[in-house]
Amino acid sequence: MTDKNVKLVLANRPKGWVQESDFKLVETDCPKPGEGEVLLKTLYLSVDPYMRNRMDDTKSYSAKVEIGQVMVGGTLSEVVESNNPRFQPGDTVASNAGWQKYVVSDGKELRRVDPELIPLTAYLGTAGMPGVTAWVGLFEIAQLKEGENVVVSAASGAVGSVAGQLAKLKGCRVVGIAGGKDKCDYVVQELGFDECIDYKAPDFYANLKKATPNGVDVYFENVGGPILDAVLRQMNPFGRIPVCGLISEYNATEPYGLKNYRVFLTMRLRVQGFIVSEFPQSWPEALDQLSKWVAEGKLKYRETITEGLENAPKAFIGMLKGENFGKQLVKVS
Amino acid sequence: MTDKNVKLVLANRPKGWVQESDFKLVETDCPKPGEGEVLLKTLYLSVDPYMRNRMDDTKSYSAKVEIGQVMVGGTLSEVVESNNPRFQPGDTVASNAGWQKYVVSDGKELRRVDPELIPLTAYLGTAGMPGVTAWVGLFEIAQLKEGENVVVSAASGAVGSVAGQLAKLKGCRVVGIAGGKDKCDYVVQELGFDECIDYKAPDFYANLKKATPNGVDVYFENVGGPILDAVLRQMNPFGRIPVCGLISEYNATEPYGLKNYRVFLTMRLRVQGFIVSEFPQSWPEALDQLSKWVAEGKLKYRETITEGLENAPKAFIGMLKGENFGKQLVKVS
Repeated sequence: MTDKNVKLVLANRPKGWVQESDFKLVETDCPKPGEGEVLLKTLYLSVDPYMRNRMDDTKSYSAKVEIGQVMVGGTLSEVVESNNPRFQPGDTVASNAGWQKYVVSDGKELRRVDPELIPLTAYLGTAGMPGVTAWVGLFEIAQLKEGENVVVSAASGAVGSVAGQLAKLKGCRVVGIAGGKDKCDYVVQELGFDECIDYKAPDFYANLKKATPNGVDVYFENVGGPILDAVLRQMNPFGRIPVCGLISEYNATEPYGLKNYRVFLTMRLRVQGFIVSEFPQSWPEALDQLSKWVAEGKLKYRETITEGLENAPKAFIGMLKGENFGKQLVKVS
Repeated sequence: MTDKNVKLVLANRPKGWVQESDFKLVETDCPKPGEGEVLLKTLYLSVDPYMRNRMDDTKSYSAKVEIGQVMVGGTLSEVVESNNPRFQPGDTVASNAGWQKYVVSDGKELRRVDPELIPLTAYLGTAGMPGVTAWVGLFEIAQLKEGENVVVSAASGAVGSVAGQLAKLKGCRVVGIAGGKDKCDYVVQELGFDECIDYKAPDFYANLKKATPNGVDVYFENVGGPILDAVLRQMNPFGRIPVCGLISEYNATEPYGLKNYRVFLTMRLRVQGFIVSEFPQSWPEALDQLSKWVAEGKLKYRETITEGLENAPKAFIGMLKGENFGKQLVKVS
């Protein structure tokens, strides 16, 4: 390989909103695979909300990225050289190469994907980590039952869009929450949610209340803040809140003060944070089923694809601000 | 019976702190037991934080008390007349007669207690509903494991004192939180907690942090507010918070804004509200074991006993303000 490697490393720990200057582009020689190893070229990089946590120097569910380290991230990659009998040059694999063009892997964590079954990029979204996240949150954490009343925030996003559609497939009534009329229209008309409430519109709580006349049994939480406070007022006894994300807090300099937490007691709620990587036993079944449903057209999705690894910071920041529509990806090669 | 009945009924729904004028003393004729019924005379009335919720006109875990209705409450009663073959005059029973001197019962919900085994009043505290509440919170909700790090708020109270002692019996390290030096000394010296932090003293969080060098696996929550925010900062991954009470909110005119709820996600906590009456399957084993441990001196307790039903409002309000020490009871007859 004569091509150079390109990496985006963490330059600063952000205070409040992430800046593009918090990342630094670095060029190095292309790594060489040793015995049993493969060289991967990144085709697509997934940018996801959880990455914001990794940039902070606080104890959290996973190791932070150190200053000067390559940013972590899920990728779709092509095997370009192989010293591993399990892989051939030209194979496409899901991997965790991070924000860089080339990486060497021992092959252990690579998952071969089938470009014939569904579009490649779906393996980073609906049939990938975000889809499995929705699956684990609904079925493992919330123990969703048929016919329940479900609310999903960030409903047009990579995880929320799958969570709502899975709940519909389970026979539930599903109300989404999203920002702006376009996203709300998409959530109802294309994804098939029963309703979708625009949190940016006036009378958000009144609209949410009208859309949940039988209350809320399961709230799939991606955002936190005033939206969480509003949904808490609608919770039914024995409701469950799988806490998948709290994106409104990730860039806040002052935390939001959650007012309606008394409902935890009065409604005997179960509120539980989770991270999908801690449920490895769920991945094989979930990925298999999600891929099939994508292939059958039962799970729909939309993507925003940004061109060029150098634009990954901009794509990431836009995603944190909700500027993307559906799954945010970066086309690297 | 020529004795008159005396009842305390709800006169007003309180705004903020309960006032004595929110209750009204009413005298009526003594009721007469019909076929299969017994007439009970109240010996002791238990006043408990949950009663504050029943005074409000909001949806909650249990039916509200209507204006003019007798206040609800657990009691120890003596059978004074019986048309029921299961009971003899002179029997002592645990019941739910509420804030009144006499009541007629069909006997179905009466639990006979043994005055020889332990002191009668313990059946309203450590070997009664508060004790079972501690049991359910720790073992059913939190799934407490040996050797875990436990924090209990309202540690000298009826529920908290049992929760901490049960956790000690399970081989855990237990830190209490209580108001004032006297209560903290009692919690450590008499109840045997490892440490107890005074939330009224300066440097509360610093002291809590020092007392929980290995973090907190289970936080038995009775109070909410800034104390909950402080303990959240100490939670370990996969920590559990059984939410038994949020007494700081019950009389608040403005809810407290909970700042550290992000920890639900970062530490993958399970936060769950519960009410002990919804765990009927746990009561027989819990009551049996709790009574034995009281008899063996393994569970210690303290009581504040107020004389006279007419003083129940004052006793109740004092309990809500933390003026009592240990289980608050009212001696009625």
